[in-house]
Amino acid sequence: MSVEDALRSLGESGDPTQATRDPKGLVAYLELHIEQGPRLADAGRALGVVSDIVGIYHARVTLRGRADHAGATVMSARADALAGAAEIVLAVERIAREHPDGVGTVGEIAVRPGAKNVVPGECVFSLDVRAAREHEKLVQRVVAEVERIAHARALQATVDELARVPVTPLDRGIALLLRRAVKDVGVDAELLVSGAGHDAQNAQLSGVPTGMIFVRSSGGSHTPREFASLDDAALGARALAVALRELAA
Amino acid sequence: MSVEDALRSLGESGDPTQATRDPKGLVAYLELHIEQGPRLADAGRALGVVSDIVGIYHARVTLRGRADHAGATVMSARADALAGAAEIVLAVERIAREHPDGVGTVGEIAVRPGAKNVVPGECVFSLDVRAAREHEKLVQRVVAEVERIAHARALQATVDELARVPVTPLDRGIALLLRRAVKDVGVDAELLVSGAGHDAQNAQLSGVPTGMIFVRSSGGSHTPREFASLDDAALGARALAVALRELAA
Repeated sequence: MSVEDALRSLGESGDPTQATRDPKGLVAYLELHIEQGPRLADAGRALGVVSDIVGIYHARVTLRGRADHAGATVMSARADALAGAAEIVLAVERIAREHPDGVGTVGEIAVRPGAKNVVPGECVFSLDVRAAREHEKLVQRVVAEVERIAHARALQATVDELARVPVTPLDRGIALLLRRAVKDVGVDAELLVSGAGHDAQNAQLSGVPTGMIFVRSSGGSHTPREFASLDDAALGARALAVALRELAA
Repeated sequence: MSVEDALRSLGESGDPTQATRDPKGLVAYLELHIEQGPRLADAGRALGVVSDIVGIYHARVTLRGRADHAGATVMSARADALAGAAEIVLAVERIAREHPDGVGTVGEIAVRPGAKNVVPGECVFSLDVRAAREHEKLVQRVVAEVERIAHARALQATVDELARVPVTPLDRGIALLLRRAVKDVGVDAELLVSGAGHDAQNAQLSGVPTGMIFVRSSGGSHTPREFASLDDAALGARALAVALRELAA
């Protein structure tokens, strides 16, 4: 059921895409979320408080070379779009490793024509590039490397930007309040940068003082092995309750 | 219409998959084909004669790492199946370049789960490895490199062999006859190795003396830009006719 249908079944008649709420009427926005990363687990801490949400750049890259017979085309005569993409995948990994708290991912890839006995004539893949500091610089390095590699291999490259969300520093006062709340339930929380995007950043970008508590999780994320213990989740909920009480006081 | 249906419509009643013909009843098998590669065009020759058909190895490689959130998972904590595959794509290219007349191609690739904000947990891709000399050695180098790269990145690798066709030397006597026939139509043909597989190799492997004439082609192969001129094709047909007359004499 869509949100629109659900609202209509509740008797709402307006257009939900036009719905807004004045951020000035909100004192704060708090979010409790699993970390989806290994830093709390590595540090042996159940909870953390988020300082910033990373900037995110999403793009689709298309490399065009020349489809060729995989047997009859000598190596020196090829313009293999996948070989170019492979160099870029490794460049994204290397550049992200060099950037403080930077991450870079190619999560989607497809080749055309896509037959085992044909040199790929075209390769389309995604870019996901994130950092909490100097995000623009990181994106520029990645895009420059895409163009350099394509040029060196006589491939045509097109980079279509799909989304660009700026680095979002969360509210400093709320972060202090959340650290006190987390301390109150027995955890000396460190400030963490969130590498994932969150609903919270939209609240902060709308001008609502916003903060997040992270709960330790393990097993990776966006996978069935992702896991947070009930004890850790309950501790996070208790810290959230402490923070809400302090805000309401 | 399938071959089976076509044969039945002509009144045949047997099982076409059981049909055989005794190779001893055949004097020779000749095939005229475009080169599908750039060597004749580069040499400025309209025709060539095939000495050998390369050995072909086809396999499917599966790399398994760990799907992870593309933002929350720091670079040092990843087991990215596509990054491993990218290293292998470049290794295949490098190893094939180093092998005399070797070619190596990754023509198919897919990742799972396949979302731009998820580190690939699995990557499946094809291998096509060919050479006219020391084919086994080339295949072994490629497979060893797949295993080395997977191990270094803590990925699990499975290599499923799909097909392995040995190097097929064509008949030396027929090759001499074809060179005379090609000379007769005005071309001083060089002997070429065929990097593509051909029907001819099945005839040769069945014990029928077999030969092939290649016609110059350009624009790559297995692509709509593939091209052979009418003049070159006609010249090839004339050479084939000369050879057939000599065989029939």
